[in-house]
Amino acid sequence: MRIALGIEYDGTDFFGWQRLSHGRSVQGEVEAALSFVAAHPVEVTCAGRTDAGVHARCQVVHFDTVAERSERGWTLGANSNLARDVAVLWARPVADDFHARFGARARRYRYTILNRPVRAALSARFVTWERAPLEVDTMQRAAQALIGEHDFSAFRTVACQANSPMRNVREIAITRSGDEVSIEIEANAFLHHMVRNIVGSLLPIGRGERAPEWLAELLHGRDRSVAGPTAPSSGLTFLAPRYPAEWKLPAEVTL
Amino acid sequence: MRIALGIEYDGTDFFGWQRLSHGRSVQGEVEAALSFVAAHPVEVTCAGRTDAGVHARCQVVHFDTVAERSERGWTLGANSNLARDVAVLWARPVADDFHARFGARARRYRYTILNRPVRAALSARFVTWERAPLEVDTMQRAAQALIGEHDFSAFRTVACQANSPMRNVREIAITRSGDEVSIEIEANAFLHHMVRNIVGSLLPIGRGERAPEWLAELLHGRDRSVAGPTAPSSGLTFLAPRYPAEWKLPAEVTL
Repeated sequence: MRIALGIEYDGTDFFGWQRLSHGRSVQGEVEAALSFVAAHPVEVTCAGRTDAGVHARCQVVHFDTVAERSERGWTLGANSNLARDVAVLWARPVADDFHARFGARARRYRYTILNRPVRAALSARFVTWERAPLEVDTMQRAAQALIGEHDFSAFRTVACQANSPMRNVREIAITRSGDEVSIEIEANAFLHHMVRNIVGSLLPIGRGERAPEWLAELLHGRDRSVAGPTAPSSGLTFLAPRYPAEWKLPAEVTL
Repeated sequence: MRIALGIEYDGTDFFGWQRLSHGRSVQGEVEAALSFVAAHPVEVTCAGRTDAGVHARCQVVHFDTVAERSERGWTLGANSNLARDVAVLWARPVADDFHARFGARARRYRYTILNRPVRAALSARFVTWERAPLEVDTMQRAAQALIGEHDFSAFRTVACQANSPMRNVREIAITRSGDEVSIEIEANAFLHHMVRNIVGSLLPIGRGERAPEWLAELLHGRDRSVAGPTAPSSGLTFLAPRYPAEWKLPAEVTL
């Protein structure tokens, strides 16, 4: 039978999602914990692989098993075998044709910037520091140029393996709460480094070094080499993928 | 001349505030960084020593120096010599009779509880986990019994070195935001482990295992051995001390 899981992690001390021959990976540790609970080797497939240092509030995976365990058994069993920086949030039996990656209709990310004169300490694992005051309204206005179906080559790393540079961005919301500026982006899917590259080009606009129209120019120019640098991984959190309601998954991952 | 500093830290990987002969201490690392900037040995005195694993949003210290540096020079110089989990927020020259500890008229702490069925991962360093649903309104009602000047022996660790068990609690605010329950307490000063011991007795009330009146009974009984256990250090953050306005310190630490 097939099981879907929601997983939360602090990515700071991982070399990323993907299993490695050496070094900590979230996939490797989740598979080891589930294999222990299932008493047979388990392989998981995730909704969206995250890079080193990137966090997840609700990553979704699926795996196949012959073990009979309750939802609670999978969740608590996995958590007692996982390190402090990873936790299974829920487990749900799903039909055999559910696929965590191909079934996701949208993904939502949040990028957090600590915007104050001195660098972070308390939140250092979860933010990027920007000392220059950011003009959030200008950033929000600029970002609206990205909404819709576009060729996102300007914000795609050369290492990206996707077949097409076309992606459909549904929403971008840039807000400030005290010293923290939050950039939330939802799209059908993302190219490799796409959120961090968009943030890297929104920052000069927020600092007033570039006009808000620059973002639209970059998008239409499709030239990665003239866009801003890739923003650091620490500020990025994969909030959740979204699936059609028919899969009967928890509300936080349902469209 | 005397300088006051505001300092933020993630206490997870420290053995606490106080300088040690071996092992990381916040005091030891701050003194080493300031000594480097001053080019002479610096000793700091803090507003409130924190235990291992306890965080600070704005600890205040003072130190004496013969070095002439700008406020910016102290702040940026110290930060470039401090690890990622400690940062100086501001520096301010103060009169020679300013004292970070004896001058503080109040201290404010926050205790954060992650209240959901599964343990923390993303916020593991900054919360305590409680799986049973907490009745926040009942906790808030119970906690009001602590307001005012009382003998807090019921919530004082045996290791506490204070001369008197009398403390004046000015405010307790217990609120919920989603899965997180926050307990903010302000008092003139705190006994050793006082916040964590109060939280340890508020939890059974929040879970419905004890009546709200139990907290007042514990307070008046002054018997540590019948009160709840000490809540874990990870959930505790020293928000800030408060000083009279005459010292002209930043607003966040002014009464």
